[in-house]
Amino acid sequence: MDRVPTGAKGLDEILGGGFPKGKTILVVGSPGSGKTILAVQFLRAGTENGDRSLYVALDEKPEQVKENVSAFGWDLDRLEAEGKLMFIDATPFRRTKSLSFGKYEVQGVLPLQEAIPEISLEGLIQVVKRVAEEESVSRIAVDPITSLVVRYPDPAKRRRAILVLFEALSSTGATCLVTTELRTSMLARRFQLEEFLSQGVVLLRTGIHDGNVVRAIQVEKMRGIAHDPQLRPYLIGQNGIEVFPKDKVFK
Amino acid sequence: MDRVPTGAKGLDEILGGGFPKGKTILVVGSPGSGKTILAVQFLRAGTENGDRSLYVALDEKPEQVKENVSAFGWDLDRLEAEGKLMFIDATPFRRTKSLSFGKYEVQGVLPLQEAIPEISLEGLIQVVKRVAEEESVSRIAVDPITSLVVRYPDPAKRRRAILVLFEALSSTGATCLVTTELRTSMLARRFQLEEFLSQGVVLLRTGIHDGNVVRAIQVEKMRGIAHDPQLRPYLIGQNGIEVFPKDKVFK
Amino acid sequence: MDRVPTGAKGLDEILGGGFPKGKTILVVGSPGSGKTILAVQFLRAGTENGDRSLYVALDEKPEQVKENVSAFGWDLDRLEAEGKLMFIDATPFRRTKSLSFGKYEVQGVLPLQEAIPEISLEGLIQVVKRVAEEESVSRIAVDPITSLVVRYPDPAKRRRAILVLFEALSSTGATCLVTTELRTSMLARRFQLEEFLSQGVVLLRTGIHDGNVVRAIQVEKMRGIAHDPQLRPYLIGQNGIEVFPKDKVFK
Amino acid sequence: MDRVPTGAKGLDEILGGGFPKGKTILVVGSPGSGKTILAVQFLRAGTENGDRSLYVALDEKPEQVKENVSAFGWDLDRLEAEGKLMFIDATPFRRTKSLSFGKYEVQGVLPLQEAIPEISLEGLIQVVKRVAEEESVSRIAVDPITSLVVRYPDPAKRRRAILVLFEALSSTGATCLVTTELRTSMLARRFQLEEFLSQGVVLLRTGIHDGNVVRAIQVEKMRGIAHDPQLRPYLIGQNGIEVFPKDKVFK
Amino acid sequence: MDRVPTGAKGLDEILGGGFPKGKTILVVGSPGSGKTILAVQFLRAGTENGDRSLYVALDEKPEQVKENVSAFGWDLDRLEAEGKLMFIDATPFRRTKSLSFGKYEVQGVLPLQEAIPEISLEGLIQVVKRVAEEESVSRIAVDPITSLVVRYPDPAKRRRAILVLFEALSSTGATCLVTTELRTSMLARRFQLEEFLSQGVVLLRTGIHDGNVVRAIQVEKMRGIAHDPQLRPYLIGQNGIEVFPKDKVFK
Amino acid sequence: MDRVPTGAKGLDEILGGGFPKGKTILVVGSPGSGKTILAVQFLRAGTENGDRSLYVALDEKPEQVKENVSAFGWDLDRLEAEGKLMFIDATPFRRTKSLSFGKYEVQGVLPLQEAIPEISLEGLIQVVKRVAEEESVSRIAVDPITSLVVRYPDPAKRRRAILVLFEALSSTGATCLVTTELRTSMLARRFQLEEFLSQGVVLLRTGIHDGNVVRAIQVEKMRGIAHDPQLRPYLIGQNGIEVFPKDKVFK
Repeated sequence: MDRVPTGAKGLDEILGGGFPKGKTILVVGSPGSGKTILAVQFLRAGTENGDRSLYVALDEKPEQVKENVSAFGWDLDRLEAEGKLMFIDATPFRRTKSLSFGKYEVQGVLPLQEAIPEISLEGLIQVVKRVAEEESVSRIAVDPITSLVVRYPDPAKRRRAILVLFEALSSTGATCLVTTELRTSMLARRFQLEEFLSQGVVLLRTGIHDGNVVRAIQVEKMRGIAHDPQLRPYLIGQNGIEVFPKDKVFK
Repeated sequence: MDRVPTGAKGLDEILGGGFPKGKTILVVGSPGSGKTILAVQFLRAGTENGDRSLYVALDEKPEQVKENVSAFGWDLDRLEAEGKLMFIDATPFRRTKSLSFGKYEVQGVLPLQEAIPEISLEGLIQVVKRVAEEESVSRIAVDPITSLVVRYPDPAKRRRAILVLFEALSSTGATCLVTTELRTSMLARRFQLEEFLSQGVVLLRTGIHDGNVVRAIQVEKMRGIAHDPQLRPYLIGQNGIEVFPKDKVFK
Repeated sequence: MDRVPTGAKGLDEILGGGFPKGKTILVVGSPGSGKTILAVQFLRAGTENGDRSLYVALDEKPEQVKENVSAFGWDLDRLEAEGKLMFIDATPFRRTKSLSFGKYEVQGVLPLQEAIPEISLEGLIQVVKRVAEEESVSRIAVDPITSLVVRYPDPAKRRRAILVLFEALSSTGATCLVTTELRTSMLARRFQLEEFLSQGVVLLRTGIHDGNVVRAIQVEKMRGIAHDPQLRPYLIGQNGIEVFPKDKVFK
Repeated sequence: MDRVPTGAKGLDEILGGGFPKGKTILVVGSPGSGKTILAVQFLRAGTENGDRSLYVALDEKPEQVKENVSAFGWDLDRLEAEGKLMFIDATPFRRTKSLSFGKYEVQGVLPLQEAIPEISLEGLIQVVKRVAEEESVSRIAVDPITSLVVRYPDPAKRRRAILVLFEALSSTGATCLVTTELRTSMLARRFQLEEFLSQGVVLLRTGIHDGNVVRAIQVEKMRGIAHDPQLRPYLIGQNGIEVFPKDKVFK
Repeated sequence: MDRVPTGAKGLDEILGGGFPKGKTILVVGSPGSGKTILAVQFLRAGTENGDRSLYVALDEKPEQVKENVSAFGWDLDRLEAEGKLMFIDATPFRRTKSLSFGKYEVQGVLPLQEAIPEISLEGLIQVVKRVAEEESVSRIAVDPITSLVVRYPDPAKRRRAILVLFEALSSTGATCLVTTELRTSMLARRFQLEEFLSQGVVLLRTGIHDGNVVRAIQVEKMRGIAHDPQLRPYLIGQNGIEVFPKDKVFK
Repeated sequence: MDRVPTGAKGLDEILGGGFPKGKTILVVGSPGSGKTILAVQFLRAGTENGDRSLYVALDEKPEQVKENVSAFGWDLDRLEAEGKLMFIDATPFRRTKSLSFGKYEVQGVLPLQEAIPEISLEGLIQVVKRVAEEESVSRIAVDPITSLVVRYPDPAKRRRAILVLFEALSSTGATCLVTTELRTSMLARRFQLEEFLSQGVVLLRTGIHDGNVVRAIQVEKMRGIAHDPQLRPYLIGQNGIEVFPKDKVFK
């Protein structure tokens, strides 16, 4: 299977090469664990290879995301101007109340609150597929998918919605990272539905051990490739997420 | 009682021979624990014996499953071409919106969403029984049964649905593996309904012990045969799942 | 109080003689813990004494139960042919869709799904009482009672249903074992309603201690007799369940 | 405050004398912990003092209770014949479907299931107060109160029902023991509503410590008197419940 | 900020003086922890200063409360006769079914059960404010507030009800103690809504440590003053609650 | 990114400078942990820089907040008179039942209870934005946001409400602190929705370690800046919250 560099130093090593090309990988993390940072690192890595990348924003607007990562010295505005990185603003706060995204029209919006229409799963999938195809996008990040998923309280419908979303992303042929929230801590771990339905799952966990805050990354699953399943320490440093594939998390 | 090889090195030893022939065994596992890998190993082992095997896909399409296991060097396409391994695509994404599976027609579909009809339990049972009979199938994997089960929130109806499914699989005379999701981790273990209703249960657990990720397989139950009930370590290696029947999981 | 042998080696000793004659005892166990095996051992022990025993199957058909225990060398078909052991098939899968059990007619069936009628609590009680009386049955096993109980989500009605069932079994004068599922593991133990309402409770627990799977039997309660309340190890061996009344479970 | 002997050896010492006279005390226990045994010991102790005692049965019929305690050598039939101990059968199984209890008529029954009417809280209170008054009863046991309480799922109404019951028992002037079920084990203790509303609470707990089953009694609260609040070991021996007020539960 | 003595030896020291004058303080405790005892000690301390105190009973009638504390040698009847301590019986069992409390009329009663009307939050507030004003009350205890709070299952309405109650107590200018039930034990602590809304919170906890029952008091919060936040041991002794401000709870 | 001093000694150091200017930061804390104190320290720090600050009170009235912090020697009345600190009383208890806040009119009130109208999210946002703009406010505290959030039991709507609130605060350009309640303790940590949606999260936790109450502050997340993620001890001392950025919480 072909691989694509993850963009996070040390993570390629855990994966034995990089993310499997064309797969959809779930990144699950507690608050502040670095989900968005990892997603952006991933897309940037794509642009360094000549790939075109797409960031789909669902909670925080693209302008904020760009600002958040500027401290790492990443100039996303420049990449956008160069056409290497595209943004879809699917947050409830996008400036245009109409349903266009850039030059893409969307059919079928879910009117949660008429003044600020929220994008429906079908509408989002339409736009993403069209952009991916017409713009030859090879990497996509959807950050986070939680707001799409929480609309389906019924477990059967939720399961279906997640499968539909993952299938649509797969159909683009791009390598995709989707982020979601890890609700419980390490001790009382309950596996979340999205983890079972993904082809790959990376956990970003922050735990407390002996009064120390510990950051651990774990490749819980990655179908189709052999990988190191262990918890490895990582940190959010000057250049984004850095993983230490040879170290143990505790002593 | 007759036995059939499991296909996973070391697991036959735990069972004192192999799976009991003609029984339906539940494989429960956390995300990334290897449920699908074990199911495919099991079917392949059947084809090596001259048995005909059937894989029923409910979440991931057969094409994806084949790709996922190609890293182990398993060529499922070839087995399929040789007529040794058959696939039923019962996922919500099958190409044909009509209700045929290969040359088998299905009565009674549950229209969850009309555009992409989802297969009903009765419809699936019909097709599986017919294929098993007409094609003399000796091994069946249903992977996973979760989407069939979650449609029944009422405990009495859920219990019944599971019993009906297991009875139908038993009636084919084939040895069957069905997979499902283990929702809670080792520490706060709550037994799931399907475990009580199965004739055999194999648990694939991933736990964290002293900061290490540990994989343990356990034959929780196997009616009719004596077996080793202990937790044993396993890994997902180059040839699929490999079990170490003589080792302890912790030190 | 008179006693009857339990049929499980070592268990009589814990009870100081055997089960109290004529009482209804609940066996609660996790999956694979041996509930059915204990129930069958109990009935066989009765037949060795010249008693007539009755097995009421609610989930697994009698044919399957017989097959499951054949590995222990128990020939239940023979006992049945000799009239020492009788079976009521009250599973959803009994061959006859009509409401006869052997030569006993049942009034009042609960039509959960018309095609496969499920037996109502009242209907089952009627048949069991009639068989017990007309056939002079001294031992009864109802395995498991869970499907009867889960139909009553309301706590008051559930309490009542269990009391009605236990009262009916008591009225036969037979010594009765009823099995049910232990839903939570040792660490987070929540007592189940049936335990409070039974006259006697035997727990079959499987726990994990230091990475070892440990089987422990505990007589939690047995009204009217003195008994050893401790956890004792047991195993499922060549002759069924064997208890070690003098040993500790850990070290 | 006056005291009355509890009837359980060692418990009077923990209480610094015995139960406070005229109060209503709650006994909470896990299955098999000895709630009914303690209640009967308490009533017997009353009869030894020349007191008249009343046992109100809600789950198990008086005949069964008498049989259960016969192993301790307690002849409750004799006490009943001597007029020292009275029984009210308020179980769903009482022989008389009409609403008389002995010579006492009851107004207002709650028809849960017409064939076997279940006694309403108001009806029970009426009878108990009348019997207590006309027969000069000084000790009352209501065993258990759970079936009365579970009918009120709404927390406000449940609170009220419990207060009404306790108030009614108080008004008789008798010293009363009411039993109820302890639903959670020692580790994940959630306090139950009845504990807050009682004037006194005795816990009978069975826990597992280092693989040993341990029985501990604890006077959690006893308004109006000083008492030892510690966990003390107890056993159910030849003479009923025996408490060891000077010992520790562990090591 | 002015302080008033708490009445509990050792507690003033933890608070650096006493309760802040005019504030409303929540006392949360497990069953038997001494909530009512602390409340009464607090009111008595007021009477020793020449203050007039008011006890509002919601579960247990004033007569019972007086009896409960008589063991400490506290003669509340005398204080009442001297006009230093007043009682409002707002329990469901007050003798007068009409709506007068002493000489105070109440508007607007919540008819939970017409025969025994239960006091509404608004009605209770009216009476308390009027009594406090006309009788120049400086200390008030409301014991417990749970029955008022449980009527509001909706979180938004419950929040509001608590705020309204606290605001009303504040407006009297009196220093107020309100008691409530601590539902969970130390290990699985979930903070209760009232704790966030109070100006001060004192926890009375009973825990089990190494098999010993341990009583610990903790000033969780006290807005406006510096206080010792540590767990301190306390006991219920001959003179009520006694706190040991210099000791540790464990060894 | 520009920084603004937090006002809490030692916290600037953890953040590597101070809060990021113009961001909205969530302060989550258990009862009595110091959320309001931190919020007020933050606003005061602003006034020392010549900034104008705004405190939005939702549970406790401004008068009470001022009194609560007077023990630290902070004279908020004076700051208010000097026009450096403004208060919006959005509690249910504001004197004016009409909808004016100072000189600002509000459209659209949510009539939870007509007598005491509760402010709607939209109404509050309107007022805050207008005050912030017209009065050139650079720092805002909203304390607490819980009452706004609990009105949305549906997860999708709650998510949306929080995003709308945060977006509105961001749009003012001010640096904002919003406080909320930490419902679970350290051991059974469940992450709350607001933590995922904030740009920065500071946790104020009170835990019990070896019987000692321990206060720990943790910057769980702060998008856009590097920060120390560790637990650090803090105390509420004479000058408010003081953090010890170089110390460990345990031993």
